Amino acid sequence: MRVLMIGSGGVGDAAARIAAERDFFELWVVADYDAARAERTVAAVTGRHSGMTGGEGRFVAAQVDASSAGAVTELALAHGATHVFNAVDPKFTMSIFTGARAAGADYLDMAMSLSQRHPEQPYAVTGVKLGDEQFAVAGEWEAEGRLALVGIGVEPGLSDVFARYAADHLFDEIDELGTRDGANLVVHDDQGNEIFAPSFSMWTTIEECLNPPVIWEKDRGWFTTAPFSEPEVFDFPAGIGPVECVNVEHEEVLLMPRWVDAKRVTFKYGLGDEFITILKVLNTLGLDRTEPITVKGVQVSPRDVVAAALPDPATIGPRMSGKTCAGLFVTGTGKDGRPRRTYLYHVVDNADTMADYDAQCVVWQTAVNPVVALELLANGTWKGTGVLGPEAFDAVPFLDLLAAPKPEGYGSPWGLEDR
Amino acid sequence: MRVLMIGSGGVGDAAARIAAERDFFELWVVADYDAARAERTVAAVTGRHSGMTGGEGRFVAAQVDASSAGAVTELALAHGATHVFNAVDPKFTMSIFTGARAAGADYLDMAMSLSQRHPEQPYAVTGVKLGDEQFAVAGEWEAEGRLALVGIGVEPGLSDVFARYAADHLFDEIDELGTRDGANLVVHDDQGNEIFAPSFSMWTTIEECLNPPVIWEKDRGWFTTAPFSEPEVFDFPAGIGPVECVNVEHEEVLLMPRWVDAKRVTFKYGLGDEFITILKVLNTLGLDRTEPITVKGVQVSPRDVVAAALPDPATIGPRMSGKTCAGLFVTGTGKDGRPRRTYLYHVVDNADTMADYDAQCVVWQTAVNPVVALELLANGTWKGTGVLGPEAFDAVPFLDLLAAPKPEGYGSPWGLEDR
Repeated sequence: MRVLMIGSGGVGDAAARIAAERDFFELWVVADYDAARAERTVAAVTGRHSGMTGGEGRFVAAQVDASSAGAVTELALAHGATHVFNAVDPKFTMSIFTGARAAGADYLDMAMSLSQRHPEQPYAVTGVKLGDEQFAVAGEWEAEGRLALVGIGVEPGLSDVFARYAADHLFDEIDELGTRDGANLVVHDDQGNEIFAPSFSMWTTIEECLNPPVIWEKDRGWFTTAPFSEPEVFDFPAGIGPVECVNVEHEEVLLMPRWVDAKRVTFKYGLGDEFITILKVLNTLGLDRTEPITVKGVQVSPRDVVAAALPDPATIGPRMSGKTCAGLFVTGTGKDGRPRRTYLYHVVDNADTMADYDAQCVVWQTAVNPVVALELLANGTWKGTGVLGPEAFDAVPFLDLLAAPKPEGYGSPWGLEDR
Repeated sequence: MRVLMIGSGGVGDAAARIAAERDFFELWVVADYDAARAERTVAAVTGRHSGMTGGEGRFVAAQVDASSAGAVTELALAHGATHVFNAVDPKFTMSIFTGARAAGADYLDMAMSLSQRHPEQPYAVTGVKLGDEQFAVAGEWEAEGRLALVGIGVEPGLSDVFARYAADHLFDEIDELGTRDGANLVVHDDQGNEIFAPSFSMWTTIEECLNPPVIWEKDRGWFTTAPFSEPEVFDFPAGIGPVECVNVEHEEVLLMPRWVDAKRVTFKYGLGDEFITILKVLNTLGLDRTEPITVKGVQVSPRDVVAAALPDPATIGPRMSGKTCAGLFVTGTGKDGRPRRTYLYHVVDNADTMADYDAQCVVWQTAVNPVVALELLANGTWKGTGVLGPEAFDAVPFLDLLAAPKPEGYGSPWGLEDR
């Protein structure tokens, strides 16, 4: 396997650090628009792991413009890439997806092509949905015998694997597949004061949270609601405790119903009160907008300014503490014919990922899943063609490889709690 | 009197419209960094009032860089200005103040030189206070026989006139001079939906509200508190009703104790819950900062972006409705030796200022006071040298001229309510 990874921001950098401990690939090209950033990642993993798995030669840095499908194709062909792994902002999904296909490579991403709200009824009816542009060419990928494995981060990704596991092994009938994500992370400044510093791309968080949330129901299909709808307090495990969760637009709702039988599919994000207030204020002030405005003679996008004013999520790991939890709350009828309510989850402690990988926990938790998937594809455990979500594959080998202690597995166990 | 007005934004434009109805001056130069904006103001007032008060020749447009004291001096000398009237953001106060003095002109402003917080204890001890830089050269102004009348908008300005009036005519002893400002203004978009659109410069509002509020007490002097301290619900007259008010840094607290005897001086702004939340969020996100940050290769100040993303306060008048109230709540012992609690106030209805002046009410209410003061200086009712606040002058002729019906006065009555 020869991997071309596009993007060495927080998630890409962590993915390289995780992959460096594994031997399933022969080449891992780290490409970024900022060549120096790609080189920093390569230097970090070769310095760290050069003795472990075949040395420096497996990681190579490159420069790439992710907005150009042609540039992606050219770079993939130059390195004989068998798999293009997209680790950048979702606005570049289509150019990388298209560029990979033109190069005859398989493709993986962690966020699908973007949605466009319905022009007249944005909070009731779907417009262009997440992933629509990718699924539109699924037939071509299948005909060409190529695989696009979409949404294989943690959410979407591991949450979708949980959905398939629940359907295959825990439930006879599923009422709701409800992804529920929460954390108790706090970030401190150099003086020890708690500061506001999102652990994930603020640009993407705004996109997710202010777009109309999408819900799927068996007798209704996909529909949308107003942002922050259906608030609920969900009690997260591992000491995280209760967090206010609200509906958010997310890929799981578009993926799970295609392969898993359920009556309802939702995604709720444990934003907490403060973050919800912040997002509402940004919307009120028009600071969530992406179109450039003129500010004293220069053109800038307000959302880019908001993101730039905050600490870079890739740099806050050392000043962060706490745990993050991704999971799927499944309700329905168990294999024994009785009502069942089960939360399948994966908790990561920032202290552990900082100590072991020098990566903060949210990006590490996102990054580990595509690496596990690549290993399953490399050894032939997972195979397929077309545009497929994680729930199109057998969940058991994935969950086993993720949880198995090192060096056989990735040493990151998941949990199951009946409620 | 020959007036050089620097700045034809919302307040400057309204001041020119008000002045056009008066005959106390022979020349009113409208100068702005944006020459076209200055010309628009001149065109508006000459078109509107050319027949009334001596015709077009009294208003002249000019271009000026308010950040350059030399440019201000040059323009003042070129027009033989007797009075330089500063109607721009307070960040330019010192260059205009200095430029006016060098030209041998008297000077008026509506916002004093900016404060700098105490480096170690910003929320307890004052650093550089509002107006300190101006008062530092008060002796020179006095020695040169020139007057700088500072803080002569509505707040500071009319509020300070009320303080002098209360001390001279209503109270034997004053416990607190508490400026209280509130409104029930709402703004609608073209579809009739209520939108968030501050009626005053967002840049200045952030500056005022996030700087440490300053309080004066007779036995303690000036000191600061945390932003949004001492919240209270104040009941405003004229149907505005109760509004949440909090301490805010404002010139009145620096001006009143210099000329009026009181035990305590405060300023509370009726921001309301939503605005307080918005300001707290901007602070949390670092979007109140004025130092430029790099956003995708361009340098911008986050606060400038916030201001630019909102509707221009000068343009929202036609879509605004409601009233704004400025006033001073005075407590102490009345002239009859009994406890007294009196609110002196001035209410303006947006519908009236739009109909009469094509100006929204908050900028109109700010703009009318310096024009009244200029008229009192022109006819010799008010005179003085040095750096003086409005409370250094007799309040009665000011309040009479403001309230008297047109054409003798400005037709804008004030009120008094014992509580």
